Amino acid sequence: MASKLAIFEQDRLLRAKGPIQDDAPMRLRMEVYVKDLQNRIVAGIEKVDGKSFERTTWERPDHGGEGITCVIQDGNVMEKAGVAVSVVYSQLSKEAAHQMRHDRGKALPDRDDLPFFVTGISQVMHAKNPNAPTVHLNYRYFEVFDPDTGVPLIWWFGGGADLTPTYLFEEDCIHFHSHYKQACDQTDPDFYSQFKINCDKYFYNAHRGETRGIGGVFFDDLDCKSPEELFSLVRSLGDQFLPSYVPILEKRNVMPFTDEMVEWQQIRRGRYVEFNLIWDRGTRFGLQTPCARVESIMMTLPLTARWEYMYHVESNSKEGELEAALKNPRDWIPLH
Amino acid sequence: MASKLAIFEQDRLLRAKGPIQDDAPMRLRMEVYVKDLQNRIVAGIEKVDGKSFERTTWERPDHGGEGITCVIQDGNVMEKAGVAVSVVYSQLSKEAAHQMRHDRGKALPDRDDLPFFVTGISQVMHAKNPNAPTVHLNYRYFEVFDPDTGVPLIWWFGGGADLTPTYLFEEDCIHFHSHYKQACDQTDPDFYSQFKINCDKYFYNAHRGETRGIGGVFFDDLDCKSPEELFSLVRSLGDQFLPSYVPILEKRNVMPFTDEMVEWQQIRRGRYVEFNLIWDRGTRFGLQTPCARVESIMMTLPLTARWEYMYHVESNSKEGELEAALKNPRDWIPLH
Repeated sequence: MASKLAIFEQDRLLRAKGPIQDDAPMRLRMEVYVKDLQNRIVAGIEKVDGKSFERTTWERPDHGGEGITCVIQDGNVMEKAGVAVSVVYSQLSKEAAHQMRHDRGKALPDRDDLPFFVTGISQVMHAKNPNAPTVHLNYRYFEVFDPDTGVPLIWWFGGGADLTPTYLFEEDCIHFHSHYKQACDQTDPDFYSQFKINCDKYFYNAHRGETRGIGGVFFDDLDCKSPEELFSLVRSLGDQFLPSYVPILEKRNVMPFTDEMVEWQQIRRGRYVEFNLIWDRGTRFGLQTPCARVESIMMTLPLTARWEYMYHVESNSKEGELEAALKNPRDWIPLH
Repeated sequence: MASKLAIFEQDRLLRAKGPIQDDAPMRLRMEVYVKDLQNRIVAGIEKVDGKSFERTTWERPDHGGEGITCVIQDGNVMEKAGVAVSVVYSQLSKEAAHQMRHDRGKALPDRDDLPFFVTGISQVMHAKNPNAPTVHLNYRYFEVFDPDTGVPLIWWFGGGADLTPTYLFEEDCIHFHSHYKQACDQTDPDFYSQFKINCDKYFYNAHRGETRGIGGVFFDDLDCKSPEELFSLVRSLGDQFLPSYVPILEKRNVMPFTDEMVEWQQIRRGRYVEFNLIWDRGTRFGLQTPCARVESIMMTLPLTARWEYMYHVESNSKEGELEAALKNPRDWIPLH
């Protein structure tokens, strides 16, 4: 019987042997990658902000895994920015296994003792200047094991990156999407268009009839190519973060703004909270998981948000221009 | 075949005949009551605030009902206060009927054309002064009709009132609960203890391990006595609102406060948003209903809220005192 503990122990020994090489299990290679990416993102954003991230590490009780959370709050450029990685060894609940079989077509045996592993990076940055967009990324690798042999039964990658501006700058949308298209194209010329459409569908505030932001790329349950090819895709995408976002941040952060623009920013922050708490599968899954680390889940929320009754923007205003782009998602660059 | 339209037409004729008397159907008597209560609450709060509520009326397309929403935003005393009534004639979706049968034990036929009626009042007030608590109330009456005869198959009352302070004043908790116990006791000496416990259970932020506020009363699916007796209960409870809340508001509103207290208030506002968007059945049901009036649903959210990473309060502080009361709900007055 290979419990999550046995797999955890096996991985602990592999890590203790020395640096993880290319012949190590994919889960350990992904863990190394997301931790390295976290360090690079933290360094890259600290250079722009001038304030250091506060770093917290945590461990799940009973060898269940660990995490590193880096946060800037009330920085010089960032209102709130968080970059978290986690490594979790656990067991699927009967409900989770059922849901994976039925809603997501996963080939899993009908048991309630399936060990799983997941590692990932998750990151949200809300800048102070309303001209600078909020950005989100998340990449994760999942494995479910045969409880008798400890051999992985199924695996998949999920994740993406998307941009949520308060004010629309078309050149920023083009810049952001171009970087992710370039990364996708290295693996499959059809991926960008699929992931771009997925992203608009997923980050959708159905009750408002608008997308959360101007999109990006999003995928889940990705196992249509070899792990090697998809790991390469995920690394290309992750590596795009700093070049896709920092130039936008640096350009917008120095622009002047008014109190009215901050109010609109706060309204948009409210919509961000709505999406994350009402619709986001990851947040809802996390909040309903016993012993989840609530601080890490809520890290994605902005520092402040605002809800005005019957808030209305003129369609021919800058605010209306953003609203129109969210109500009718556009192709910022040719899909192919 | 008695569609929702036939019932709507029948009620329209009854209303047109003149004032609704005690022999009219309960749904019309409840409608009259909640509209009158709304007017009294609006008048009572305007007297304290000095600013007038903004009144919006709306109608659902195709004779589906109507609503009146009254809101003060950025008043003298109120940060945001909304009182809404609605009258809805609609049809249960197959899913809603299934859920009512299976999860709530409602004796409903297995059909997807069941007309229903619901009328209710819903109200949330967030005061500016952090010493003054937020208050919520909601009372509703529901009927599901036989689609062949138009006769009500089942009916029930639901609702309650609860208080959400930023700072704990034990005398306010006692004052608030005493009013509702008194109202409950007029109908049944066991109701207060049942409804008080329900309230602590329902308004619970499970992911935080704390109740939303210091409680009050809450009930749903109430049909254990005659409609007449329960209507009398609901009126007693509704009539308690102004005396249960206004004296607290007037006392706390004149107290001095600091910027630190406002920050704690904003953190608590964030928890209020979390409860409403993550856990509140009514909000989630509303948001997933096509053609729902989003402005009325989101009216309950505070004007502003705040999320700080790893926010921590000292257990021997005023803030810690509130937190302790939310983590371990107390009996503010003897339950019987």
